[in-house]
Amino acid sequence: MKTVITISRQFGSGGRTVGKMVAQRLGYPFYDKELVKQVSIESGFSSQYIEEYGEHSRGMTSFSYGFGLTGTPGVMRGMTADDFLFVIQREVILRLAQQPCVIVGRCADYILANQENALHVFIHADKEYRADRIVRMYGESEKDPKKRLHEKDKKRSNNYKHYTEREWGYAPNYDICLSTSKLGIQRCVDLIVDLVKNSETPSDGKEKGEEA
Amino acid sequence: MKTVITISRQFGSGGRTVGKMVAQRLGYPFYDKELVKQVSIESGFSSQYIEEYGEHSRGMTSFSYGFGLTGTPGVMRGMTADDFLFVIQREVILRLAQQPCVIVGRCADYILANQENALHVFIHADKEYRADRIVRMYGESEKDPKKRLHEKDKKRSNNYKHYTEREWGYAPNYDICLSTSKLGIQRCVDLIVDLVKNSETPSDGKEKGEEA
Repeated sequence: MKTVITISRQFGSGGRTVGKMVAQRLGYPFYDKELVKQVSIESGFSSQYIEEYGEHSRGMTSFSYGFGLTGTPGVMRGMTADDFLFVIQREVILRLAQQPCVIVGRCADYILANQENALHVFIHADKEYRADRIVRMYGESEKDPKKRLHEKDKKRSNNYKHYTEREWGYAPNYDICLSTSKLGIQRCVDLIVDLVKNSETPSDGKEKGEEA
Repeated sequence: MKTVITISRQFGSGGRTVGKMVAQRLGYPFYDKELVKQVSIESGFSSQYIEEYGEHSRGMTSFSYGFGLTGTPGVMRGMTADDFLFVIQREVILRLAQQPCVIVGRCADYILANQENALHVFIHADKEYRADRIVRMYGESEKDPKKRLHEKDKKRSNNYKHYTEREWGYAPNYDICLSTSKLGIQRCVDLIVDLVKNSETPSDGKEKGEEA
């Protein structure tokens, strides 16, 4: 059975909401900012620093070697602060994934790529749906909503590429990708919960005379 | 209700089989080589030519202007034979999609991107699963199976990019992407059929205090 669900998502797609609802339905813990707090405790980084930079790796080179973390000089050698942060996040995620849970973001799909009991989900939606949703959720901003979407997605994509050398949103990186604008948030949740509950090793028997 | 299903797929993933099974379950016609035949009849191209080059656009520039199709000199002007073929395929797909059907390949997801009643599916699987499957389905070859996969996928990807200017396999281009190696062919079929049968316009009501 798949007991660890990772959710990657386009900004504004409702992916975080999907993850939270899936966790509630399954009775699993949900990690997002919660995870950040945990990372924070383990690393000595301030919670605010991690919230600001945890998902955005670029433009941080000036921080290299700049953190005077006590007791970790060896680990920091040759790493930027972001690389170091990633290493810590990775350790926390690997530990959390020993128990059933839902993890949103943080390259968890990549970190847990080889974990047999993990289901990797990508949630996306069309631009109109997302633009409407971020204005509804986060309120108006000076920036055009579509520009906000573009910038956020770009940052997530760059961060993902930097740490995984894979393309963010490329379907083969995930087990299932769903459009909330096309299917609706509720149906995405139902679908994932159903997959988790019925996730025995698939057996398709024989295919005769079919083509690949 | 979604009555037109397009299926794009990695070579060896079983996407064509999924499409055929979905069509059978729904009682819809299934178009793949069938479509090619139809294209062939309408265009005057030979069936063999279309089978060989219909999905692979590159390396064909020497054919430009080379076809002496009677009655279509105006259409051919300034187009390569492949571009012309694409235009014809596009027209056939648009016409077929007036009725319920399942269409595999041929950039149908792009051609029908704005069609309200269409569900766009991408099917993929991990390399081991696909390599095993193509040897089982198509027999041994002089080439290493993984090399065969890579070359076929590369051709499909280049062709898709050439005609759509989009990235093949990029999740937001599709409504749902599924891994047959992770979920099994049968479950992918069940999932798609269920989505089609319950594809009223989604309504998620209000989300309160949630984040995007």
